[in-house]
Amino acid sequence: MSGWIAVAGLGPGADSLVTPEVTEALSQATDVVGYIPYVARVAAREGLVLHPSDNRVELDRARLALDLAAAGRRVVIVSSGDPGVFAMASALFEAVEADGAEADIRILPGITAMLAAAARAGAPLGHDFCAINLSDNLKPFALVEHRLRHAARGDFAMAFYNPRSRSRPEGFSRVLQILREECPPDRLLIFARAVTAADESLRIVTLAEAQPDMADMRTVVLVGNSATRRVGRWVYTPRSAGPV
Amino acid sequence: MSGWIAVAGLGPGADSLVTPEVTEALSQATDVVGYIPYVARVAAREGLVLHPSDNRVELDRARLALDLAAAGRRVVIVSSGDPGVFAMASALFEAVEADGAEADIRILPGITAMLAAAARAGAPLGHDFCAINLSDNLKPFALVEHRLRHAARGDFAMAFYNPRSRSRPEGFSRVLQILREECPPDRLLIFARAVTAADESLRIVTLAEAQPDMADMRTVVLVGNSATRRVGRWVYTPRSAGPV
Repeated sequence: MSGWIAVAGLGPGADSLVTPEVTEALSQATDVVGYIPYVARVAAREGLVLHPSDNRVELDRARLALDLAAAGRRVVIVSSGDPGVFAMASALFEAVEADGAEADIRILPGITAMLAAAARAGAPLGHDFCAINLSDNLKPFALVEHRLRHAARGDFAMAFYNPRSRSRPEGFSRVLQILREECPPDRLLIFARAVTAADESLRIVTLAEAQPDMADMRTVVLVGNSATRRVGRWVYTPRSAGPV
Repeated sequence: MSGWIAVAGLGPGADSLVTPEVTEALSQATDVVGYIPYVARVAAREGLVLHPSDNRVELDRARLALDLAAAGRRVVIVSSGDPGVFAMASALFEAVEADGAEADIRILPGITAMLAAAARAGAPLGHDFCAINLSDNLKPFALVEHRLRHAARGDFAMAFYNPRSRSRPEGFSRVLQILREECPPDRLLIFARAVTAADESLRIVTLAEAQPDMADMRTVVLVGNSATRRVGRWVYTPRSAGPV
């Protein structure tokens, strides 16, 4: 049998959010490649080789998958959430382009963190919204700031991935500062941590109340637009919007 | 048993993209409420009452669900894609707020159209991106234009929902015109129609080549950022970005 690569999104954590398409691909795989905690979510079975790797080695991981597929193996690259949202799909195509590799590739979508978090909170992304990766590992912080200001001035709701890490504890303080320059203090923020995991938590605050230490590596932060409001324990953004 | 409402995302169309969580909710439901083509995707069974309704009656549909739940029924409101992305979740909370209704509500996320489309194309949303509903049913076109310009100037990739309909055939021409004012002619666009359906099609063109009639009601349009490129038959956006 000839080899293939499926880049699969495992969703935010719960098995009940893994699509049947991804489950089927995993059942056919000979090899699973990915970041350690994501590979740990795949059940071991005879004949399945697990290749867990550390963070920030995405290109190495992509090349391993390409080599395995070229040798006839059936490889699933696992990502948390959706593989096309700040995850392994882009890294794989970077490797394909750089190496001139050829492979039978499929991308299998998954439930991305911002939509799982939004569902827990209500419907904060119910109108136009942006997704922004706050990590400055691969882009300058000036670009993060540039996009934040355009997102705020465009009155988009926002979802922030990778808001804060040990290697850049100050970055999220600057993000909150930029938001405070662009948005009023009653703008609603949702800190959604470890959604669908046993230690899941959801914190809804105003921009005035938001603090940098409310976010960590396992948090997605959602920011409402000018119309986002609370109703009971929920936060939602109405479908209609007033004039510009 | 007391009533509840689950607002469930059915994904783009294929059964293999319906999450187990949604399948489980449908198996427990007494009533399914939704737009006709989405309700048609739910298998009939004894004891399950289907309540298909026409387009643009979202608030009536939400109130029907609230009434049914108040009477002790177990109601699934079905949306295509994800219920929190330009779908029924916001409409339900609008009805809850307007009527002061109380109900046991859960939002069950799904694979939203832009992520299914992106997966088919490669990884065009692999960096920061925006989702914009181009329908001006519930917002003025001036706000669509305002957001388009900010999204383009922020160098976001973009996903457009509801790009074109019979009632507003000219709207998408204006969108392309605004993009041409803001972006260079080699910017990549993907017209993804009926993703995962039997008549699925994917068309990759430059902004210079894009024509209004490439989109219809069943199309999601993806627009790359300044770094989005082709590799083989794929389109992807790299994870890194140059300086602003």
